[in-house]
Amino acid sequence: MPARRVIGVDLGGTKLLAGAVDPDMGVHSRAARAVAGLSQRALLEAAVGAVAEVLDHGAQDAAAVGFGLPALIDRGTGRVAVGAHTPLADLAFADTMGERLGLPVFVDNDGNATALAEHRAGAARGASHALVLTLGTGIGGGLILGGELYHGARGGAGEIGHMEIDLDGEPDVDNCPGRGCAELFVSGPALEREALRLAALHPSSALARAAGDGGRLAGPLVTELAHDGDPAAVEAVALVGRRLGIVLTSLVNVLNPELVVIGGGLVAAGELLLEPAREIVASRTFPFLHERLRIVPARFGIEAGMIGAALLAWDGLGATGVSQ
Amino acid sequence: MPARRVIGVDLGGTKLLAGAVDPDMGVHSRAARAVAGLSQRALLEAAVGAVAEVLDHGAQDAAAVGFGLPALIDRGTGRVAVGAHTPLADLAFADTMGERLGLPVFVDNDGNATALAEHRAGAARGASHALVLTLGTGIGGGLILGGELYHGARGGAGEIGHMEIDLDGEPDVDNCPGRGCAELFVSGPALEREALRLAALHPSSALARAAGDGGRLAGPLVTELAHDGDPAAVEAVALVGRRLGIVLTSLVNVLNPELVVIGGGLVAAGELLLEPAREIVASRTFPFLHERLRIVPARFGIEAGMIGAALLAWDGLGATGVSQ
Repeated sequence: MPARRVIGVDLGGTKLLAGAVDPDMGVHSRAARAVAGLSQRALLEAAVGAVAEVLDHGAQDAAAVGFGLPALIDRGTGRVAVGAHTPLADLAFADTMGERLGLPVFVDNDGNATALAEHRAGAARGASHALVLTLGTGIGGGLILGGELYHGARGGAGEIGHMEIDLDGEPDVDNCPGRGCAELFVSGPALEREALRLAALHPSSALARAAGDGGRLAGPLVTELAHDGDPAAVEAVALVGRRLGIVLTSLVNVLNPELVVIGGGLVAAGELLLEPAREIVASRTFPFLHERLRIVPARFGIEAGMIGAALLAWDGLGATGVSQ
Repeated sequence: MPARRVIGVDLGGTKLLAGAVDPDMGVHSRAARAVAGLSQRALLEAAVGAVAEVLDHGAQDAAAVGFGLPALIDRGTGRVAVGAHTPLADLAFADTMGERLGLPVFVDNDGNATALAEHRAGAARGASHALVLTLGTGIGGGLILGGELYHGARGGAGEIGHMEIDLDGEPDVDNCPGRGCAELFVSGPALEREALRLAALHPSSALARAAGDGGRLAGPLVTELAHDGDPAAVEAVALVGRRLGIVLTSLVNVLNPELVVIGGGLVAAGELLLEPAREIVASRTFPFLHERLRIVPARFGIEAGMIGAALLAWDGLGATGVSQ
């Protein structure tokens, strides 16, 4: 009898989300943990605990567990090669967790997991050549090339956030050694930075009043003010959208996709973000490359990574969750 | 009996090179034409004449003709979608030439043809994930992804020269609508521009003396002076190499290749160009992405496009020239 459920785990830098997922991508029980700042040991403990909680709540028959990690994973050895925001570097994650859980464990980068979810059951369903970007603290990404998730030589493909769009630009943050990286311009922190700059330029804007309340302008607040029609907030979102358009211009020239799917927190701005991006792509690429290109919001929100992780488990078991 | 020869034609913006090619990539007879500024009709006439010349000189049994064009070709319709430097836009090139020549004709972008040659029989032989760049007046390119030439949704993939590496940069030249495009920084014209700038800064350099002779510094002369050890010329080449490194940094992050092959006129500078590029990639990407990456010169020189065009013909006939 085929397994009826698997468990997907989106293990982020600050939060872990686990869920039991059926073959139709229905999510049946969930468990969450705060994981910021944990040691490797405590992090693995938290993951085991969250999976156990999901298993106990109606997923006793789960046949495998999939994990999406904010990391580059060496597909040759199964080891975590680069762990951004997680203390997992050099760990043979799937083997270690498999022993702890007593279940088959499958693992991939969280951007790849999200791309898998959007391709199999979301906004990229049916596409053969699609790029999936998630815009949050940084840029996550996954490439669907020729109908398949593309991993590159070792498993590291899809690091769209580290494309360098400003050749003599500033060093990137965290542990990325790059300069002028895309995620310095297209991310939550970038939106906040541009919003603060525009607030100072437009002291009578709603943006400036909001900034005055505390000297910070978190992305969701800027997005809300933009939706409310504040011109300064609209411009902050549009500027980030235009820079997203520059990143996409490069990707469209290199990969000629039919579809770009944008997810992550920033896409809450909707067309205020996407339309400026489309305008840049349309003005800076040959019509042949953009006239049939669609740039659309993701279907899945904060559960994209968890659902994609479940798909890793279904695929690992050899039983694809959703017919392709 | 299988065909023993096909004809490959590299149809560039200024020059056409045709040759009869055997299954081992041996070239048996050649014909060349100057084609700069020709009308579409005269250009097709020149191509027919060059193919006839090759046929007459020992390739009477040729079974097909392959063309590499400096153009984006719609793989759905077979039409030339964007013709840079050639008056071929909207022409169903393969059909038209097939009728004229009375032979099967196969066509692709010239960067793709070059990538095919390097992958099948050159510096990228055996690689599953390789990028091929040709650096000349602009940047040509082709992607080998998962062991195959990657075309994208419509046939336009591989336009590496139009990646935007300077987000608020200058408009590109010719008919490209982009800004801050890679080929503005990594090309023969870029080398000449940087050499002139450095000649002015270093009036006692060999570079400055050479510029004084005529106010121009063609790429091959700069390369020669660099090989002779003139520090200003070395720096001009190194600067272009470092900017090549920035382009490659983005590509390495997005595609995680195992190999990058650099061809075209600029690679005559050899390690003076490639080593600065490698240094940038090594300093700006995670070790996981670069520690096994090789960045090497192309095997094929000016005949790469012609040999690749012949491979298009072999592949089109269903008889691969070189065992893979």
